[in-house]
Amino acid sequence: MSDKFSVIGKRQTKLDAPLKATGRSQFTDDVVLPGMLHGKIVRSNIPRGKILNIDTSKAEKLPGVMAVITHKDSGGVMVGPDQQLLCDDMVHYIGDEVAAVAAVDGDTAYEAAELIKVEYEPMPALLSIEEATAPDAPILKQYYEDNYADDLNLNYGDVDKAFSESDHVREDEFISYPSHNCFAELHGVLADYSLPGKLTIWTPNQTAILIQKGMARNLGISESNVRVCSLNTGGAFSGRGTVRPHHLIAALLSKKASRPVKIIATSDEEFIICRSGGKNRLTLKSGVTNNGTLKVIKADHLYDCGAYVETQFIMPTIVGATLQMLFKVEAFRYKGQLVYTNNAPYFFHHGGGLVPSQFAFGQHLYLIAQDLGMDPVDFKLKNAFDKGETTLNDTHYASCGLKECIKKAARKSGWNRKYGKLPPYKGIGIGCGVMSSGGKGMFQHDTSAAFLKIAEDGKLSLFTGLPDMGQGSHTTMAIIAAETLGIAADDITVISGDTDIAPYDVGAFAQRGTFTTGNAVKIASLDAKKQIAKTASEKLGVKPASLIFRDRKVYPKGAPDKAISFEDVVFDTLNCMEGRFIMGRGFYNTPTTKAALAYSFGAQIAEVEVDPETGIVKLLKMTVAHDVGRAINPLAVEGQMDGQVFSGMGQTLFEECFMEGGQILNQSRIDYKLPRPYEVPEMEHIIVETNDPYGPYGAKEVGEGPIACNPHAIAMAVSNAIGYTMKELPLTPERVLQAIRKKNRIS
Amino acid sequence: MSDKFSVIGKRQTKLDAPLKATGRSQFTDDVVLPGMLHGKIVRSNIPRGKILNIDTSKAEKLPGVMAVITHKDSGGVMVGPDQQLLCDDMVHYIGDEVAAVAAVDGDTAYEAAELIKVEYEPMPALLSIEEATAPDAPILKQYYEDNYADDLNLNYGDVDKAFSESDHVREDEFISYPSHNCFAELHGVLADYSLPGKLTIWTPNQTAILIQKGMARNLGISESNVRVCSLNTGGAFSGRGTVRPHHLIAALLSKKASRPVKIIATSDEEFIICRSGGKNRLTLKSGVTNNGTLKVIKADHLYDCGAYVETQFIMPTIVGATLQMLFKVEAFRYKGQLVYTNNAPYFFHHGGGLVPSQFAFGQHLYLIAQDLGMDPVDFKLKNAFDKGETTLNDTHYASCGLKECIKKAARKSGWNRKYGKLPPYKGIGIGCGVMSSGGKGMFQHDTSAAFLKIAEDGKLSLFTGLPDMGQGSHTTMAIIAAETLGIAADDITVISGDTDIAPYDVGAFAQRGTFTTGNAVKIASLDAKKQIAKTASEKLGVKPASLIFRDRKVYPKGAPDKAISFEDVVFDTLNCMEGRFIMGRGFYNTPTTKAALAYSFGAQIAEVEVDPETGIVKLLKMTVAHDVGRAINPLAVEGQMDGQVFSGMGQTLFEECFMEGGQILNQSRIDYKLPRPYEVPEMEHIIVETNDPYGPYGAKEVGEGPIACNPHAIAMAVSNAIGYTMKELPLTPERVLQAIRKKNRIS
Repeated sequence: MSDKFSVIGKRQTKLDAPLKATGRSQFTDDVVLPGMLHGKIVRSNIPRGKILNIDTSKAEKLPGVMAVITHKDSGGVMVGPDQQLLCDDMVHYIGDEVAAVAAVDGDTAYEAAELIKVEYEPMPALLSIEEATAPDAPILKQYYEDNYADDLNLNYGDVDKAFSESDHVREDEFISYPSHNCFAELHGVLADYSLPGKLTIWTPNQTAILIQKGMARNLGISESNVRVCSLNTGGAFSGRGTVRPHHLIAALLSKKASRPVKIIATSDEEFIICRSGGKNRLTLKSGVTNNGTLKVIKADHLYDCGAYVETQFIMPTIVGATLQMLFKVEAFRYKGQLVYTNNAPYFFHHGGGLVPSQFAFGQHLYLIAQDLGMDPVDFKLKNAFDKGETTLNDTHYASCGLKECIKKAARKSGWNRKYGKLPPYKGIGIGCGVMSSGGKGMFQHDTSAAFLKIAEDGKLSLFTGLPDMGQGSHTTMAIIAAETLGIAADDITVISGDTDIAPYDVGAFAQRGTFTTGNAVKIASLDAKKQIAKTASEKLGVKPASLIFRDRKVYPKGAPDKAISFEDVVFDTLNCMEGRFIMGRGFYNTPTTKAALAYSFGAQIAEVEVDPETGIVKLLKMTVAHDVGRAINPLAVEGQMDGQVFSGMGQTLFEECFMEGGQILNQSRIDYKLPRPYEVPEMEHIIVETNDPYGPYGAKEVGEGPIACNPHAIAMAVSNAIGYTMKELPLTPERVLQAIRKKNRIS
Repeated sequence: MSDKFSVIGKRQTKLDAPLKATGRSQFTDDVVLPGMLHGKIVRSNIPRGKILNIDTSKAEKLPGVMAVITHKDSGGVMVGPDQQLLCDDMVHYIGDEVAAVAAVDGDTAYEAAELIKVEYEPMPALLSIEEATAPDAPILKQYYEDNYADDLNLNYGDVDKAFSESDHVREDEFISYPSHNCFAELHGVLADYSLPGKLTIWTPNQTAILIQKGMARNLGISESNVRVCSLNTGGAFSGRGTVRPHHLIAALLSKKASRPVKIIATSDEEFIICRSGGKNRLTLKSGVTNNGTLKVIKADHLYDCGAYVETQFIMPTIVGATLQMLFKVEAFRYKGQLVYTNNAPYFFHHGGGLVPSQFAFGQHLYLIAQDLGMDPVDFKLKNAFDKGETTLNDTHYASCGLKECIKKAARKSGWNRKYGKLPPYKGIGIGCGVMSSGGKGMFQHDTSAAFLKIAEDGKLSLFTGLPDMGQGSHTTMAIIAAETLGIAADDITVISGDTDIAPYDVGAFAQRGTFTTGNAVKIASLDAKKQIAKTASEKLGVKPASLIFRDRKVYPKGAPDKAISFEDVVFDTLNCMEGRFIMGRGFYNTPTTKAALAYSFGAQIAEVEVDPETGIVKLLKMTVAHDVGRAINPLAVEGQMDGQVFSGMGQTLFEECFMEGGQILNQSRIDYKLPRPYEVPEMEHIIVETNDPYGPYGAKEVGEGPIACNPHAIAMAVSNAIGYTMKELPLTPERVLQAIRKKNRIS
């Protein structure tokens, strides 16, 4: 790291680590309000059908029950464009919300929920993309003509011409199966709507503003009349960004009962309401020249979005964009379609939909490289983007460390010694990825604002609306403020998690944290610095511009012996006749109308060993190189790399929801297979710093980029080990064993 | 009220009224933390003596006890200059803290406290000013030469010359007896010092900053490592401004047990730890000319400060200042002395020590007026200060409505028809007062800072460190912001009560709220207004300076038909390419090195009826006139007038702690006599507005001024009714009956 920085680049422990380690961090379920009730939702137990009758009379008579609600109490509230808050005449999946109760304790609420009798007339259900897109399939939503919920068509360059000019054209189809995010914290909410003026809700989330807007819009009140308190959030992965039925149900129960109401999902409910990954079918067709130049890509993408649409369009948007942003092509065409079924509503698993698509893309390119007899690393390097280049969708790379990542990962992992030279059932694979930093497009603006105040003893409170879901973003913000003001991150208390208090921030998604909020924090810190510099300048008799702020001291440039302590300057600023209290403010909205101004890049190399008897894959080592622009906190960067390898290996090797008749069969953390700690591989971290001109101190994202790289790396390594390129995700022992058998049959 | 304002001058209900009315406001005792323990303090049961032994062994063995502390665990922590946190070798009053326990529940804590056995060797105790100042009295504090804890001597002009030039000189001695504030909320604290980095305490207070500084200083940690959470405060009256032993004891217990610890005073403890009014002895000697011109005042003041000194010097400071600030004199001398005794430490009751001194001063002047045969109203008008005049202690009155208050109160009450013309045992009396607004002198600065943010829907969060102890100060701050920005007070959420979050504010004492914090809020609002005006100016095509902000609209001056809504302008400000999020900031430190820049004045007229058989006084009517500069919220101004009549009549007529051997005999709310609602008189409110040049929108204080007026008015009325001028406070039925008998003996 450069000596230019005194805080940035140092390994900073998360500021809330002591609280987390001693169990003192508070989560939604830790909040207890006087008079609080417990809510329970009654859900459909059939995937599709008519509601004939709902009998709540017994539940209402149960002692301790304070409120029962059904559709007629919901005031017609909708969740998203096509979902009733509580079903009126139809249910669309197993788990659809039909009624809810609030009672003095959880047991009573459960008992009351059991007493609500719902009569259904079952109807034929469509439980897969294939069924739903069959020509004679019944139409699931009466106001549509087919079961396609949404689509996206992208077309750049002359695709047909590019194919006709290609020396080699190849088409492959890839399928990935439903999976689940398995958040550390279950979905839950505590809502207090007992007074008419204001609804307050506590709920884990990654964007309080979007939850606030969603609640307000659905309930028909002004945004500021909803106060969202965030506390800690046990994982988010894009799945905690919008209002879900349980939020609104808790609010309505609270209003009806005039008491606060808490609803926490049970483990099996969690699998229904989480909205994680649905089934994907991605067909990729590409053309290359004989010398390995990629010319054209065409992608057809079908995605099971489940019973309701909400924000699922983000999935094709991301997939469609990224497929043409990693390697240079002349032409590109993408058709993405969301398909309604009677499965639980899906969104995507951790990785923004990139795990299935990058798995497919990577395997497809691996097959092409094999067709051409090229080393996959050479093939990637030949086609990779460089700094200063612009993609087909007009994305300009002001910084780009893609080739550096590929080269460093290859060198560090000993790729040349290993690829093609490993013993049977050992394999190596490489994956690359690109990810926007500070993604835009949520509103007309995508602003992050920051505010700070400095106490008389030089300690700082930093206000941000950016949530920390465990990724350490608050510590990163503290480092940026500390670097700017020449103090330590430990001098800073981060204030967040309450929409009444926190400055505006669109939230922690689209890799906005370090980039967008980080820029706002830097601006607010510079604003405060100016106020401090005024005092220091007077005391030291030099111009503000020639002051150095470093190591809790302020001194004239080149004269550290004349240093006065930061604390003293702050004290003197307050203790003057004006009583100047230091408050810094700043906001940042990435100055572009495009999706982002900065992009992170990465390359990862996986090494595996496959047991040919069982099909079990052992992930031996991951070499993770990522262009983060600037590592604000290398410890956190490595933590992100580790976490994303963990999640990526889970999605690539293990995680799958087994479906039968619309029912998830393995809806518990015992039955649903996640990586265990002993399965985590040896990790090699390579941080590439390209100093992005737009990022705060050059920083870009690392919060989601690495997971765009590892599914392909792992899948390629497994394919390399068994000599058969796999096309279905996850690579469970069953599928690997089947592939080994196919391979043996072929060869 | 002037049409100049759209929000100021309207009767605004307190913003938190619905919360208060429905019992949803949270106080310290409402906070429950996971793993929280309950603390109990072991107190001395003798007024003075040596500690021979403390046996905590049985308490420590009691199941459920998590921590026991005595002096040896306190690390030598002091509370104030002469008080050990927990007594080591000596106890100095009944209630002195000796040991403390923390246990899993309150019952266990109480049981454990009972099991702690303390052996004392009693020593002679001094239980009155008279005993303590006797020549042969034992010295209570070994490091002093006598029992005077502190003194204040003021001398302006040539007092001897002025007396020699006076036509008439009179001297009287007045005594007031100990009393108690009877806060609506008992003293209490919840401390979490279970992690080393930060101590968090919840406690009712009127200045979080001073509590924070006090805790930090006593515990030897940096200020920002103490987070003070204030929530609501059930009354303060200058008694909640400093750290008390229970705060530190809870922190030490929490540290030792590694768990949060709550201590809430019992009703009898409350009377010991409250530090309200001690016994006063005030001798006043004044000289006048025959035509009623006051020439000189000399005051000798003895005050029982109890066993320990802390901030009691404020009492003589206030009394010494105010005695020469109401009426013009040529010369003034004041000698105030605090006297140590073995009573519980005293401070003062509601009114900043002015109830006893203004009672004395008023009765003294009443006697002089009677000596001269003058009407007391005429006598007061003749000597009262005017706007533009300067007092002997160099206080300049930039605004002064004293004479207007006297005249209006006299006219409205029908003084001329009544004084001297009432039937026997009916009486009328007038009292006047002066009070600083935005008092200074706490630090080198006395800054209030304010911050605000405006949400996309035009609703505002206003951050202030000023506590609201029930007086409605947060509503007042909201009105000032609303007026400045042309919105409604209801559009504003006030954020306060947490030192990590709130901007710096010295606190709610010295009548700083409306004046000092109000100025800061106005400055912060103007700062935000400028940001909004930028957008509005662009949209309306006029200069920012010619924009009017009113009624949630912005329009060019004189063209309200061109108005755009405030909400739309705010929305457009955020929804631009810069994403400008509106944040306003401001701070204000009254620009003077004197005690204050503004003063409020008042006059009150009391009408009473005395039952000659019982001595019971019925307060029939109070006519309250007060120069508040500008009534920001007339409803709150009247509320302050009412509350201060309630408190003043209590102190004047009823409230007294009966002492015996250092023990308070009536230490419960059943035995201690407060006014009952049916005893509150008919009220006439007269708001005088003098538009102070320094106050925000011309406003001055009304939070403590009125109580400086009513003790004298009531006491004069009683004296007028019975024809005997009383000199001891309170005017209990016993004392009134005694006076009637004396009067009958004399006449």
